[in-house]
Amino acid sequence: MAVEGPVGEFLRRHIGAAEAWPMEPAAPLSPCRLSAEDLEALAAVVGSAHVDIEEPTRLAATGGASYLDWVRHRAGDRSDAPDAVVRPSTDDEVVRVLRIAEERGIVVVPHGGGTSVVGGLRETRPHVALVLDRLGLLLNVDEVSHLAVVGPAATGPRLEPLLAARGLTLGHIPQSWARASIGGYVATRSAGQASTGYGRIDDMVEAMTVATPRGLLHLGRGPSSAAGPDLRSLFIGSEGTLGVITDVTLRVRPLPSERRYEAVVFPSFAAGVAAFRAIAQGRVTADVMRLSDEAETRTSLALSGPKGAAAAALGRYLRARGVDVGQSALAILGWEGTDGAYVVDRRRATWRILKDHGAVALGRRAGESWRRGRLDGPFLRDALMDAGYLVETLETACDWRGYLDLHENLTRAISDALETSAGQPYVMSHLSHVYETGASLYTTIIAAADRGDPQGQWLGAKEAAMQSIVSAQATVTHHHGVGRDHAPWLADEWGVLGVDAISAVKSVLDPAGVLNPGVLLPDTAP
Amino acid sequence: MAVEGPVGEFLRRHIGAAEAWPMEPAAPLSPCRLSAEDLEALAAVVGSAHVDIEEPTRLAATGGASYLDWVRHRAGDRSDAPDAVVRPSTDDEVVRVLRIAEERGIVVVPHGGGTSVVGGLRETRPHVALVLDRLGLLLNVDEVSHLAVVGPAATGPRLEPLLAARGLTLGHIPQSWARASIGGYVATRSAGQASTGYGRIDDMVEAMTVATPRGLLHLGRGPSSAAGPDLRSLFIGSEGTLGVITDVTLRVRPLPSERRYEAVVFPSFAAGVAAFRAIAQGRVTADVMRLSDEAETRTSLALSGPKGAAAAALGRYLRARGVDVGQSALAILGWEGTDGAYVVDRRRATWRILKDHGAVALGRRAGESWRRGRLDGPFLRDALMDAGYLVETLETACDWRGYLDLHENLTRAISDALETSAGQPYVMSHLSHVYETGASLYTTIIAAADRGDPQGQWLGAKEAAMQSIVSAQATVTHHHGVGRDHAPWLADEWGVLGVDAISAVKSVLDPAGVLNPGVLLPDTAP
Repeated sequence: MAVEGPVGEFLRRHIGAAEAWPMEPAAPLSPCRLSAEDLEALAAVVGSAHVDIEEPTRLAATGGASYLDWVRHRAGDRSDAPDAVVRPSTDDEVVRVLRIAEERGIVVVPHGGGTSVVGGLRETRPHVALVLDRLGLLLNVDEVSHLAVVGPAATGPRLEPLLAARGLTLGHIPQSWARASIGGYVATRSAGQASTGYGRIDDMVEAMTVATPRGLLHLGRGPSSAAGPDLRSLFIGSEGTLGVITDVTLRVRPLPSERRYEAVVFPSFAAGVAAFRAIAQGRVTADVMRLSDEAETRTSLALSGPKGAAAAALGRYLRARGVDVGQSALAILGWEGTDGAYVVDRRRATWRILKDHGAVALGRRAGESWRRGRLDGPFLRDALMDAGYLVETLETACDWRGYLDLHENLTRAISDALETSAGQPYVMSHLSHVYETGASLYTTIIAAADRGDPQGQWLGAKEAAMQSIVSAQATVTHHHGVGRDHAPWLADEWGVLGVDAISAVKSVLDPAGVLNPGVLLPDTAP
Repeated sequence: MAVEGPVGEFLRRHIGAAEAWPMEPAAPLSPCRLSAEDLEALAAVVGSAHVDIEEPTRLAATGGASYLDWVRHRAGDRSDAPDAVVRPSTDDEVVRVLRIAEERGIVVVPHGGGTSVVGGLRETRPHVALVLDRLGLLLNVDEVSHLAVVGPAATGPRLEPLLAARGLTLGHIPQSWARASIGGYVATRSAGQASTGYGRIDDMVEAMTVATPRGLLHLGRGPSSAAGPDLRSLFIGSEGTLGVITDVTLRVRPLPSERRYEAVVFPSFAAGVAAFRAIAQGRVTADVMRLSDEAETRTSLALSGPKGAAAAALGRYLRARGVDVGQSALAILGWEGTDGAYVVDRRRATWRILKDHGAVALGRRAGESWRRGRLDGPFLRDALMDAGYLVETLETACDWRGYLDLHENLTRAISDALETSAGQPYVMSHLSHVYETGASLYTTIIAAADRGDPQGQWLGAKEAAMQSIVSAQATVTHHHGVGRDHAPWLADEWGVLGVDAISAVKSVLDPAGVLNPGVLLPDTAP
């Protein structure tokens, strides 16, 4: 199926034509590979109604949203479906389920929204999916301390309206928002699009309960502590390998009454990076700060910018202010708060810095339009794959000093790896999480899919990208997590001793190695 | 020796007289208990000039600044002096020293500034003090990323002038500033007096090197990551039990060109707490926010407030604004930055909230006077003990919802424990670290010392205080750390599984258990 309109035109112009890629119907699932005794033992804990081996339930608990997952699913391959879906109703039941799994050597994969893009959900051995939606959604709100106790049934769309009814918000909006669970955010150390102002999920967790085969851990006392190493940090980002998060106590904020988003154009990506650095280091950050490189800016303007005479007018407007539209870098800035005057003050302080770096205002309409469309990315991917394109993203973070070099080297490494005689890939990036010492780098890659070996095509590009990231001493992942896809690079970042240290924790809490084996840590499953 | 002037008058009026407490000369140290072979093996790594068993060197590496330590030292007891002081010059030498310690079963106590107030330095078995001052002070500065690589020789007074020469500052100012090492800040999860604006030391660490008997760990890539659990968090707060921190890469900030400190008075501690909460939750925080309860306010006014006719005028000024000086709560607020207009904006936004809570301005002079005197506390303690008084502090943090109850119950528990027929203790507190969900509580206790059993007197009060803290689900320590004194309460905060998890890490990195045994974790020394 060809892509129509400006997107289709953009693809044909920059990448070339591709051949429609049909979605095969899912092959029938293999019968449940767990024994009758296994199923009975699990049912004795949660009730037989909550140990489900029916195909629709198993398919609904099959996840994974990376290109590799989508290629497999597109071919009808559902070998990563669980053999059974188990739904306990209390954290004690979770512990008992895990003990049975330990005794019987059953692999357990906690399943939240199924949105992992790094192979966090790609288990093909016999396994159960642990679905925790019976443990509750919003368990408690402390309106004095601004704390919400949230259960595993919570996703953004379910939680935010309940918080909004009390004038509160979590403010965590990653692209997986539509489906991802709040527990999944914590397990994968997620960062949302407003993380510059609202913080990463790590910054929001005050307390948590973790179920392990050895029992429950209740971690976190008060807003901050010096009581030894921060134990919560062991489980934030543990990706279901050290325990199962059964509730989290999260810092919430007043629902902003004032909200101002606007678009800005810089004469170059480098100028924008310099401005964002100065803003972060001057501690006058906006809540949302996002800067596209030249390639992503060209895409944005081609797909959703003005057309025809209006485009020419925009070009003249920018040129008069020293910006060549073809080399420009588009930025979105957003400020939110409950004190309107202070939102204005913060914006004014930010603009004092923006002006020093040649920024030109594009106004609020473009900013609001980004805010409304910011969660559409994942849905566009499906359409692009239908049309025969490889489409994938990867991300990292590094210090400001190496930022532009990393951007250049990473872009080149991916382009070189995917270039063929048939055509060029399109590689575009943005900076969307700003820190005083550095920033994230998020790259989107589109290329005509190699239909003979789509996995091999992508793995080659990914390998090249990771080499470039690791050799720059950048992190192997800023917010996607490790899963299976980044696990081979983790020893580079942690060192062997670091891997040994976390493995030692696993050996105490999950000695049989049944929790998400092969994710994050070396596989020690039976 | 009697205390003169306003302090003496205050003590006699509120606590009663006490009997001068002479400082006994230190008893001669016992001869070094390490074998000649031990010393030779260590000298083979670091050179014989850097394995020192002379008494002055050993005494200089004897630390501890809690009341229990001071009582012991006042009696001339130096049984906690190390048997030798070992000074390696590289991180590889540190690893080799630790391996020798492991092989030979020698207990190792890393020694920074010696300022632990929680029994972090109270080893009486044969042991070496590891002094790392040869590993360097300021190893590198990345002025683009605002990162400084700092070695173990760094203390605040040594580091800040070097940073200031480049227009930068760390901004971490705990009361131990004069002596504490930067590595010690990290090892104990320290928080400085400006932590509301500058963050805790945990927030400043981007990367670190840790030496263990198994080798070196190089942790931290870029400003932020989702590469599994944050491994740095395992070592921040590990108090020398999991490894020895040999360098840290810290976020630094531009030296503020604008600085405004001022004093404010609230009609009550409760009104001040409500204001501080609203400021934190409105995200318009000052960089320094400190609020004294009524008892601490009375002390501050008696010791450094106006006297005579000026005091009466202050009383009239406050009364006209609805504040009874005897029930008032004094606060210090400080804003710093490089953009003068934005400092003014932030102050104005803070004042909009302050006014809603009945705050009355006392002006900049009182604020600046606090800033200049803020590190004097530890020096006053010596004079009070000379005069025969028990003087000690303790601290915790909890959520806003339970804050005033904890303050009341903790104050009462300590007062009841220390009350005798001979007199009343003086118990006063302040809030000095503000978070959106809660705050710290720091309590100072002064009482006539029980000279027959000074340790028992304090331990009784401490036990009562900790019961009150633990039963409120507050943290056992907000910034003093665990050491030996809080270790018995750690299982309550972490749970047995939490202790097992960290002990598992220790068993991998320090299997012989020679690193700071008995601190933080259960003692597993040979």
